Amino acid sequence: MRLSRYFLPVLKETPAEAQIVSHRYMLRAGMIKQASAGIYSWLPLGFKVLRKIENIIHEEQARAGHIAMQMPIIQSADLWRESGRYDAYGAEMLRMKDRHDRDMLFTPTAEELITDIFRANVSSYKDLPLTLYQIQWKFRDEIRPRFGVMRGREFYMKDGYNFDLTKEDALHAYNRHLVSYLRTYERMGLQAIPMRADSGPIGGDNTHEFLVLAETGESEVCYDSQITDLKFGDRQIDFESREQCQAVLEEFTSRYARTDETHDEALFNQIPEERRRVARGIEVGQIFYFGTKYSDAMGATVSDAEGNQVPVHMGSHGIGVSRLLGAIIEASHDDKGIIWPEGVTPFHAGIVNLKQGDAEADAACEALYASLTALGLEPLYDDTTERAGAKFASMDLIGLPWRITVGPRGLKNGVVELTSRRTGESEELAPEAAVAKIAAIYGVAKA
Amino acid sequence: MRLSRYFLPVLKETPAEAQIVSHRYMLRAGMIKQASAGIYSWLPLGFKVLRKIENIIHEEQARAGHIAMQMPIIQSADLWRESGRYDAYGAEMLRMKDRHDRDMLFTPTAEELITDIFRANVSSYKDLPLTLYQIQWKFRDEIRPRFGVMRGREFYMKDGYNFDLTKEDALHAYNRHLVSYLRTYERMGLQAIPMRADSGPIGGDNTHEFLVLAETGESEVCYDSQITDLKFGDRQIDFESREQCQAVLEEFTSRYARTDETHDEALFNQIPEERRRVARGIEVGQIFYFGTKYSDAMGATVSDAEGNQVPVHMGSHGIGVSRLLGAIIEASHDDKGIIWPEGVTPFHAGIVNLKQGDAEADAACEALYASLTALGLEPLYDDTTERAGAKFASMDLIGLPWRITVGPRGLKNGVVELTSRRTGESEELAPEAAVAKIAAIYGVAKA
Repeated sequence: MRLSRYFLPVLKETPAEAQIVSHRYMLRAGMIKQASAGIYSWLPLGFKVLRKIENIIHEEQARAGHIAMQMPIIQSADLWRESGRYDAYGAEMLRMKDRHDRDMLFTPTAEELITDIFRANVSSYKDLPLTLYQIQWKFRDEIRPRFGVMRGREFYMKDGYNFDLTKEDALHAYNRHLVSYLRTYERMGLQAIPMRADSGPIGGDNTHEFLVLAETGESEVCYDSQITDLKFGDRQIDFESREQCQAVLEEFTSRYARTDETHDEALFNQIPEERRRVARGIEVGQIFYFGTKYSDAMGATVSDAEGNQVPVHMGSHGIGVSRLLGAIIEASHDDKGIIWPEGVTPFHAGIVNLKQGDAEADAACEALYASLTALGLEPLYDDTTERAGAKFASMDLIGLPWRITVGPRGLKNGVVELTSRRTGESEELAPEAAVAKIAAIYGVAKA
Repeated sequence: MRLSRYFLPVLKETPAEAQIVSHRYMLRAGMIKQASAGIYSWLPLGFKVLRKIENIIHEEQARAGHIAMQMPIIQSADLWRESGRYDAYGAEMLRMKDRHDRDMLFTPTAEELITDIFRANVSSYKDLPLTLYQIQWKFRDEIRPRFGVMRGREFYMKDGYNFDLTKEDALHAYNRHLVSYLRTYERMGLQAIPMRADSGPIGGDNTHEFLVLAETGESEVCYDSQITDLKFGDRQIDFESREQCQAVLEEFTSRYARTDETHDEALFNQIPEERRRVARGIEVGQIFYFGTKYSDAMGATVSDAEGNQVPVHMGSHGIGVSRLLGAIIEASHDDKGIIWPEGVTPFHAGIVNLKQGDAEADAACEALYASLTALGLEPLYDDTTERAGAKFASMDLIGLPWRITVGPRGLKNGVVELTSRRTGESEELAPEAAVAKIAAIYGVAKA
């Protein structure tokens, strides 16, 4: 993308309403614009990151054997009355009447509807196990929305639902989600720690929240420092293997890690003092096993091998997709701006032309642009006539992990400058070598 | 995907509520399930097609130089009061109050919000031309929703907005959209004819609707038969060239083609009688140029080269994404079911195992599955123990364009059967030859 053709309304001033760094940088980098309290437009740069995160989730869900679908945003109140949650949900549910005066709502979660779809179509244990998921907009009418996309009212969420014959099967689905989520977050450059959680209004016995450590996190968390040494890495997991999934669960949840909701001071104090950590965390996902709560209430049964009708065991599993942008920025920034992890960066590299209009510099930039594009990478080429300092400031603010700086002086020596956003380190390289290095970083083959 | 692991709730009976063939087949093929009147869940097979259509639109919009973003679903009534449409929109707008008693609505279109984003961020003619678009869920509270996704209340729509300094520039944006839409629809296997249209509540002078001919279409259309001979094909268009875009517009709109709203009997009768056609059509998109209607009302101005503040010229351009599934099925089916065009098929080929459990047949199917998958194609392998007749009926119903049938008898002769869903013709081929033929059809290189 050429910056002169793009829509990237970068702000120089820090908007007064933004209290935390991710909110400030998302506004300043032209990623979002508030439309109403807690409701945002996703400007092109923000939308690109949102799509990247969405695609990673789709890929990882497919890897785990989960099936994508999509449920509607507006639902009838009827199913929610059947489950008993219509009254229980309170003022956070956005309610409305349609033109025929029927009670409708903007769905905040979809246990009821997915259970309804299941009971209408599945009748035998032979069709199990089954895990369906969607990525869809949700609404929760927070009384005081704040922190930008971290605590918005309209938000994008992945919600998945497993249906299993037995508790054992459902706990395997639970573990499978835990493994899949660990992989998903790591691909986004995040360390998200599964912590024992409180089940809240969805209900359930087994539940873990995934928290990203960050000073601005809304939850206080206590953990054993050994947990932050764990990496999922590129281990190959057979998602159908109960043993493999259970082993990962045990590895990642056997050390103490809890939010204030479930904190147990006595247990915490059993950890050697030098490993005790108290910090703050941002919740970016949660997994639940809640047994037959909804299948009992809504009559979602299957016939088992002996022909008995039994309620299915269920769980639900969520990732806060739009909130992840905020969490990633909270975890990865400096005082100049965002530092995108390679897995989710909106553009793979920036190209800064120090002397737009200089024939040689322009040609070198165009050649770099063409080479990177031919590799299937997306560069952002600042082809404007801004002065160099302003170009650098914008690039640092929007946080592309790699920047290639092109100027007449370097070109005389046959080099451009490749700079890492994270370390700030630069090296002078021939243009082809810079392209080859970026190709290697992103794991794409040179054409 | 192995059918035994998939969620494909195929119905044997035709649901009573479905009046048109696309609605019947989408329900029977397990693509959608009604959640409330005019509101559908997109089951896995339907969601896959929806995503394919969405991706084609994103690719073609990028090719035309348009920039993707996303606006929120819930908007405040304030902007709609500013444009004067809050009262004008009537009962089709789904309205609600949030917990602070503010008037909110589920957005049916986004001229107001995009104009607000524009005026807040763009102040100079140097930032033009600019075309922003989104693909987002919309709601129109139809009094009598029907025909499945063709006339639902909650629907998925691409809506794009151009901002230009002059009327001339904006008419180029209009032409660019026309060219881009022709390409987009053809990639989906559709012939969508641009017809002179009535501007309706959005307002505007220049507007064309794109109609797909189908017996069940809601509009009567009259056209010169020469128009159906036009193909966009794989011509390479420079979307920045006014001449090239204008030439395509002239080629595709100079012959008579109008809906009943704009029909002119006298003009129609000037066409030689043998070329006059009266038929029915389904609207799948519309482009508008409406000048300064919104920029005047909302103060969206830029400074021009002389430093004067001038209102921008705008247009809006829509594609009915969810409705396209219905339109494609209306245009491409037979009495056995859907016939997907290759560009949007949910799976590239079906594999039917005639004797599940037979070691040789199972191994041959697995090998085909692995070969197709290695090519980056997605096969659907019916690995269930249903009888052959039922497997064929399901494959015909869901409409994958190619089916490979594998049975012990053929394998003795070293062959499988490759069948075209469209023609019904079969040929016997060695398994590798069947894979090579499918690879060629989809234009993928054999690994």
